[in-house]
Amino acid sequence: MLRTHTCGELRISQTGQNVSLCGWIQRNREMGGLTFIDLRDRYGITQLVFNMELNASLCGDARKLGREFVVCIQGKVAERSNKNPKIPTGDIEILVEKLTILNTSKVPPFTIEDHTDGGEELRMKYRYLDLRRDENKRNMLLRHRMAIEVRNYLNSKNFIEIETPFLIKSTPEGARDYVVPSRMNEGEFYALPQSPQTFKQLLMVAGYDRYFQIVRCFRDEDLRADRQPEFTQIDCEMSFVNQDDILNTFEGLATHLFKTILDVDVADFPQLPYEEALKLYGSDKPDIRFGMTFIELNTLMKGKGFRVVDDAGLVVGIKAEGCGEYSRKQLDALTDFVRKPQVGATGLVYIKYNPDGSIKSSVDKFYSPEDMKQVLDEFQAKPGDLILILAGDPDQIRSSMSDLRLEMGKRLNLMTSGEFKPLWIVDFPLLEWDEESQRYHAKHHPFTSPKEEDIPILESDPVSVRANAYDLVINGVEIGGGSVRIHNKELQQQLFKVLGFSDEEATAQFGFLMNAFEYGAPPHGGIAFGFDRWVTLFGRGESIRDFIAFPKNNAGRDVMIDSPSALSNEKLNELGIETTR
Amino acid sequence: MLRTHTCGELRISQTGQNVSLCGWIQRNREMGGLTFIDLRDRYGITQLVFNMELNASLCGDARKLGREFVVCIQGKVAERSNKNPKIPTGDIEILVEKLTILNTSKVPPFTIEDHTDGGEELRMKYRYLDLRRDENKRNMLLRHRMAIEVRNYLNSKNFIEIETPFLIKSTPEGARDYVVPSRMNEGEFYALPQSPQTFKQLLMVAGYDRYFQIVRCFRDEDLRADRQPEFTQIDCEMSFVNQDDILNTFEGLATHLFKTILDVDVADFPQLPYEEALKLYGSDKPDIRFGMTFIELNTLMKGKGFRVVDDAGLVVGIKAEGCGEYSRKQLDALTDFVRKPQVGATGLVYIKYNPDGSIKSSVDKFYSPEDMKQVLDEFQAKPGDLILILAGDPDQIRSSMSDLRLEMGKRLNLMTSGEFKPLWIVDFPLLEWDEESQRYHAKHHPFTSPKEEDIPILESDPVSVRANAYDLVINGVEIGGGSVRIHNKELQQQLFKVLGFSDEEATAQFGFLMNAFEYGAPPHGGIAFGFDRWVTLFGRGESIRDFIAFPKNNAGRDVMIDSPSALSNEKLNELGIETTR
Repeated sequence: MLRTHTCGELRISQTGQNVSLCGWIQRNREMGGLTFIDLRDRYGITQLVFNMELNASLCGDARKLGREFVVCIQGKVAERSNKNPKIPTGDIEILVEKLTILNTSKVPPFTIEDHTDGGEELRMKYRYLDLRRDENKRNMLLRHRMAIEVRNYLNSKNFIEIETPFLIKSTPEGARDYVVPSRMNEGEFYALPQSPQTFKQLLMVAGYDRYFQIVRCFRDEDLRADRQPEFTQIDCEMSFVNQDDILNTFEGLATHLFKTILDVDVADFPQLPYEEALKLYGSDKPDIRFGMTFIELNTLMKGKGFRVVDDAGLVVGIKAEGCGEYSRKQLDALTDFVRKPQVGATGLVYIKYNPDGSIKSSVDKFYSPEDMKQVLDEFQAKPGDLILILAGDPDQIRSSMSDLRLEMGKRLNLMTSGEFKPLWIVDFPLLEWDEESQRYHAKHHPFTSPKEEDIPILESDPVSVRANAYDLVINGVEIGGGSVRIHNKELQQQLFKVLGFSDEEATAQFGFLMNAFEYGAPPHGGIAFGFDRWVTLFGRGESIRDFIAFPKNNAGRDVMIDSPSALSNEKLNELGIETTR
Repeated sequence: MLRTHTCGELRISQTGQNVSLCGWIQRNREMGGLTFIDLRDRYGITQLVFNMELNASLCGDARKLGREFVVCIQGKVAERSNKNPKIPTGDIEILVEKLTILNTSKVPPFTIEDHTDGGEELRMKYRYLDLRRDENKRNMLLRHRMAIEVRNYLNSKNFIEIETPFLIKSTPEGARDYVVPSRMNEGEFYALPQSPQTFKQLLMVAGYDRYFQIVRCFRDEDLRADRQPEFTQIDCEMSFVNQDDILNTFEGLATHLFKTILDVDVADFPQLPYEEALKLYGSDKPDIRFGMTFIELNTLMKGKGFRVVDDAGLVVGIKAEGCGEYSRKQLDALTDFVRKPQVGATGLVYIKYNPDGSIKSSVDKFYSPEDMKQVLDEFQAKPGDLILILAGDPDQIRSSMSDLRLEMGKRLNLMTSGEFKPLWIVDFPLLEWDEESQRYHAKHHPFTSPKEEDIPILESDPVSVRANAYDLVINGVEIGGGSVRIHNKELQQQLFKVLGFSDEEATAQFGFLMNAFEYGAPPHGGIAFGFDRWVTLFGRGESIRDFIAFPKNNAGRDVMIDSPSALSNEKLNELGIETTR
């Protein structure tokens, strides 16, 4: 080895030892006859000292070292006179006796510091330099540690990791597939998996009763901030279990990760039916670190002559405790907020319960103080509270109110960083009606089982059928979702019919799965977690991109390697394809 | 949970307990008034008993259960009168009190037994049934256990697993890439990685000094028995190390796997230079569980008038101990063997050292008994030994003799199953001349560093340059290979020049890596192991297909899901491509 220790390792107890270190020049500064260098590697920073008086030639060489040069040094560990309590190696420094330059470096295009001067585009182009920054190192290490803990926990519970294929078959369900032309089977294509869904179900048929895999998945979607064309899933499936068994098992996994990764004890995983989540929070992924649940006000507020409310399908309010003294300006800002196109409300009604007990609202001319008091009582409001009310189309207004609730949570610092509140959303609807294609779509996926008691209405009233489907939501982030699957061919066929598949289509797409179900499929179900998201949540990050070593930008490009790129005609010809544009 | 125990779990100490089990019907047989059922799950087999006298209706139901039906039973653990010492649950049986059919099954197309009646094609089509067989379950479990051990070992040595992208950029070097058309960047393509080579080198530049990943890789090659279009690699890279450090580190990994997975102690990892491996074994992946090394006989045997030998570039022999009494028929069989097209020799010369001390050879008319005795002495042969000799073009004849040596090893049972002899092949040539393209190719890959002392002859005598490259070979199987990389831009450019890349080509293909090398690249090197092969070796299997859950056949097809397949015109249109054939 070129080194005896890392740059994060030496302590005062090692004073006097001869050591060698390797790393990058983080900082180089002269102080009188001394030169101090901060040497950095993955593990930390160690201070090197060169003394002009003792060894002028060596010190002269050291002064020429530029930022990010790679060096190997030998020297003796010494106690520092001027200790730095901020870093673990801050008690010592190395009196350098030998210096070897392993490689030089051009001046980096941005500073390699926590608060860098590089914009995202530049950092992505030089991702190999960006990744040198402490923040990114912490993120990569966190990701590694979480993967190790996931695997060891699931292994300890008799789950086995089984690798499923990447070159599979295109399916028209759901998002778009990425496809791969086959040279050996001309004119034919593989598809990259959106998830190993069918394979994990086949593994259950094959008797591997507890499967998992941390696996890359691919979706050719138009990208948003928190989406990548390739992403990583913790994919799991179990046999001979019901929904509660599955939820219990993965609460165990989540509890283990909270404890081992964050040293946080999380014991409570409440369950909230989908319908109720929408009623109380306007969202199927509510952040329950704070309350501020919705109260519906149709009965109390309609019929008083206020047109907007009278015409609305839903009137709904939240109580912002202690905000009764909000200024005109603050209230206008909230109105502007709800009117943003992505929030989508047309206006905001407020009721201020003043500290002196008086009531002031934006709709005083339609509602008497008694009317107002009734609303306040409905919220069990106290003087000093503020009620915020939206009215309109129920779906739209629930969504707008959910945004407003989160905005108020932010303003009131109710979303405590470091506090984690997991929540199961259960009883999702099995199907939803799609206006565009004029047919039902599977809300989760077409293998999800309906609740036993709802099977009789599967064909007569499809949208009312609830599924054995669940999402795990933590602090408002959907971390994972899954379902108990259908393991019975007849029920699966019935569902395909409701979904508008012809028998031929169903056979062409899922024939092998339907066939498999005829050879003794066990009851089974599972879940898949978005690993990128979970890591981002634990790392308290904003974007999953910061937790992926080599992410793509919003146009699906890797700007570092400049991909995708054109192919030669020779190559296209060999594959039997040509580009049409 | 539908079950309290698995089918592999119950022992005599649990007699009297009420339990419930789930599984598949393996066997169903009547004996007088009793019905015995073998219930199977992933963990084992448990015998169920139904008694016609005690519960005629239940026993009647049991008798109707067909093979591979899925059931859940409740009952009481009882000691068996007729114990079965062959299975861990053989001391007990379950007196069944309740039977629930969870699913029925059609009669499987082949028997789900160790020695099945299903041919490979049929088993691949119904892979989900094939995977129920014990042998395949053992293989999948072995693969899982090895992956867990690899990860935990490397983690304990400060390696971190970092996921690299799958949608990358096509490179013309080496084997063919699979490509993926980009819908968002029309006319452009991603490529699937043949390995994360460049990314792991970028991670070293980024300072992650110990990286690994168990990762899928893709090569669009014409397939052979032990190749798959997608395969799994244990990919590793380290910084601030020399070749010995790397070999030591991964000897540690191999030793750990031998111990934890096979309970075998393997301490010795000899190193053999590539040149010497060819001279002694005619192969760069020799099986050294037995000796039988080559002895070159040009000096002793040429010039005696035997044309075949006199014209040969190489005359080489091996000694088969104790085979001096081989019959005419046995010797003819060996001659037939070396003449097979895949072995490629034209004939075989033998010298029998008879037990009585006399000598008999196939070339008595050219060589005197004294000539023969000299050859025997060269081999330190004893009466009863047999010398086998081939002559011809050196490369061809080394390869043929390597095959003959392995054949003799097999016939003499010298390749002991359960014995493992690892070996490093070192000092590979850096380059090889390619007749077809009339240029040099990188033997390993274009980032491999030449031996320091050979750099001066890089341009004058390229084929003589040795590389800091190494393969790990175990029992004649190449398990992995790697090299110390070039970390210096000038040397890399010099090598690209020797490889016939123009500056433009080098920049277009590897510009981002070359750029990265200008910002402080540390000395680094690594290795990649073929995980499929390593698992196959440990599982004593013949084909890697048996250790992959859902393998493809030799035409690159998945016959279970019928992939690859045609795409709709709509889909092709959306991607901006069309098929030309």
